[in-house]
Amino acid sequence: METERRRRLTPAVANVRRAVRAAFAGHLVEGDLVLVGLSGGADSLALAAAAAFEAPRAALRAGAVVVDHGLQTGSADVAERAAAQARELGLDPVLVSRVRVGGDDGPEGAARAARHGAFERALAETGARGILLAHTLDDQAETVLLGLARGAGPTSLRGMAESSGSFLRPLLGIRRAETERFCADSGLVPWHDPHNADPGYARVRVRRRVLPVLESELGPGIAEALARTADQLREDSEALDAMVLEFIEEICEPAEAGIAVSVSALEANPAALRQRVIRYVVQSEFGVTLERAHTLAVARLVTDWHGQKALDLPGVRVVRNGGRIVFTAA
Amino acid sequence: METERRRRLTPAVANVRRAVRAAFAGHLVEGDLVLVGLSGGADSLALAAAAAFEAPRAALRAGAVVVDHGLQTGSADVAERAAAQARELGLDPVLVSRVRVGGDDGPEGAARAARHGAFERALAETGARGILLAHTLDDQAETVLLGLARGAGPTSLRGMAESSGSFLRPLLGIRRAETERFCADSGLVPWHDPHNADPGYARVRVRRRVLPVLESELGPGIAEALARTADQLREDSEALDAMVLEFIEEICEPAEAGIAVSVSALEANPAALRQRVIRYVVQSEFGVTLERAHTLAVARLVTDWHGQKALDLPGVRVVRNGGRIVFTAA
Repeated sequence: METERRRRLTPAVANVRRAVRAAFAGHLVEGDLVLVGLSGGADSLALAAAAAFEAPRAALRAGAVVVDHGLQTGSADVAERAAAQARELGLDPVLVSRVRVGGDDGPEGAARAARHGAFERALAETGARGILLAHTLDDQAETVLLGLARGAGPTSLRGMAESSGSFLRPLLGIRRAETERFCADSGLVPWHDPHNADPGYARVRVRRRVLPVLESELGPGIAEALARTADQLREDSEALDAMVLEFIEEICEPAEAGIAVSVSALEANPAALRQRVIRYVVQSEFGVTLERAHTLAVARLVTDWHGQKALDLPGVRVVRNGGRIVFTAA
Repeated sequence: METERRRRLTPAVANVRRAVRAAFAGHLVEGDLVLVGLSGGADSLALAAAAAFEAPRAALRAGAVVVDHGLQTGSADVAERAAAQARELGLDPVLVSRVRVGGDDGPEGAARAARHGAFERALAETGARGILLAHTLDDQAETVLLGLARGAGPTSLRGMAESSGSFLRPLLGIRRAETERFCADSGLVPWHDPHNADPGYARVRVRRRVLPVLESELGPGIAEALARTADQLREDSEALDAMVLEFIEEICEPAEAGIAVSVSALEANPAALRQRVIRYVVQSEFGVTLERAHTLAVARLVTDWHGQKALDLPGVRVVRNGGRIVFTAA
């Protein structure tokens, strides 16, 4: 019976497998090893099962890495149980990596940093080509809403990429509920992370309180709409970022204790590029991320010049000096 | 007493006046006539009062145009009352324009179209340089959320511009509550549009149910964050749109019963530009707005060519023919 159930090709199983197959075809070549980042939750368990099924059919090898964040009592047991599930699915190798989560970056950021460190070590240790992450369309929609709430602009809105560095996210087009159905259809029992119900996390509040209100007030399909938007914004932002990198060298020159940018070059570019140049220069030279109001004040030294005084911004001083905007450390 | 109250320069009055002053300085020149689009609601009544105050100080003339949409019983009385308030504020001329709202575009779209027609006629009739519209930061945030819900991408997300054609929106940085305080501080009694409480409108649901949940779950400042985001997305989108217009002619050529675009030119551009070219060609040649999935299918004729068949999309047929993508009417 158990075996029978596991073999059922339901729509959820077919959809998740198809997504994994497409990611394999787009990014890996015969003989590659790929590791599933496995927490034991429904998303990553479905991903692990689909990867175990698809890898041999694509002449690939699939393993798993389970990160034990050590943040909850019994986390080692949870990790061992997930590792056992991975082995039973036929994944090989299966690594369990215990990390120490720092406190610098907020609880979510610190856990993410520790996890990524473990993934990088697993890549180095096993020679794997990539890590499969189980972020779903719901995660993407939540990321966009969290970015909107910060108001930090296109960069924070653009969500997660399907592929970045060694990381692949095959499930960005799959709803979370579908991974839960995958597990149910396959007789896999996922772990329910108590953090996922803790309203102390902004992401959990978005998931449990904000998205449902958006869906009920503005119609279903809002998660898909957010994810689609993220894709387009990422494209726009990447194109503009790449353009800045193409000409930034030409329009900058060293200045005493800083860097200078040509006014006429800034003037000739549209606002989107002008402001990216300003942010890029300040970020790369002084390690400071300008907020929008400050970026716009610098831009006005170009677009609305009427003899403004030097701008004393956090970490950087900006002054117009003839045909140049000069940035120096504050 | 009444006069005394009207003269009080409270923070709300100062902020709205400052916003109007900046719009005047940025867009109008001495002697210009400008008309306030007045509904009698708090937003436009505050705008009218501030315009009446600031115009003579900037050597401008300010009038008003009140549009009677004829959609509610007593709408003519509401319009006359608003016109009387405008005259009392010293605005001149004050026009009342009765329009017929069609039914083609949904109730909100049809009312907007009728209103804009009335504004254009008022511009022609009075020789005014521009129309001041009273959209606030709250309207902008609502527009962004409505755009997100549609998922139609950067274009629908970018919100309203401070200036577009003859229209100026001086209050996009002002909260709606501040215009209400302006009216209270100035002894002006605004009209409360019953449509603004009708949950049949998506915008009303966003205002009353969605934004409050976002504020309570993700912290205050969400409206400001949405408005900031709209500004940046508009800049990005405008820059990319302008780039497409710069090279579109060069890469297109007439084809039998349609138009052809060079594959190599599409290939050389980043996704953001490639997809804009595809949407632009289809929109301008066939009057069809491609949805994202279809745009991406066309793009794959360039980026993932493996001998695909012709794409039969709504209103347009697309086929790769050697070094060209050929678009013909469906």
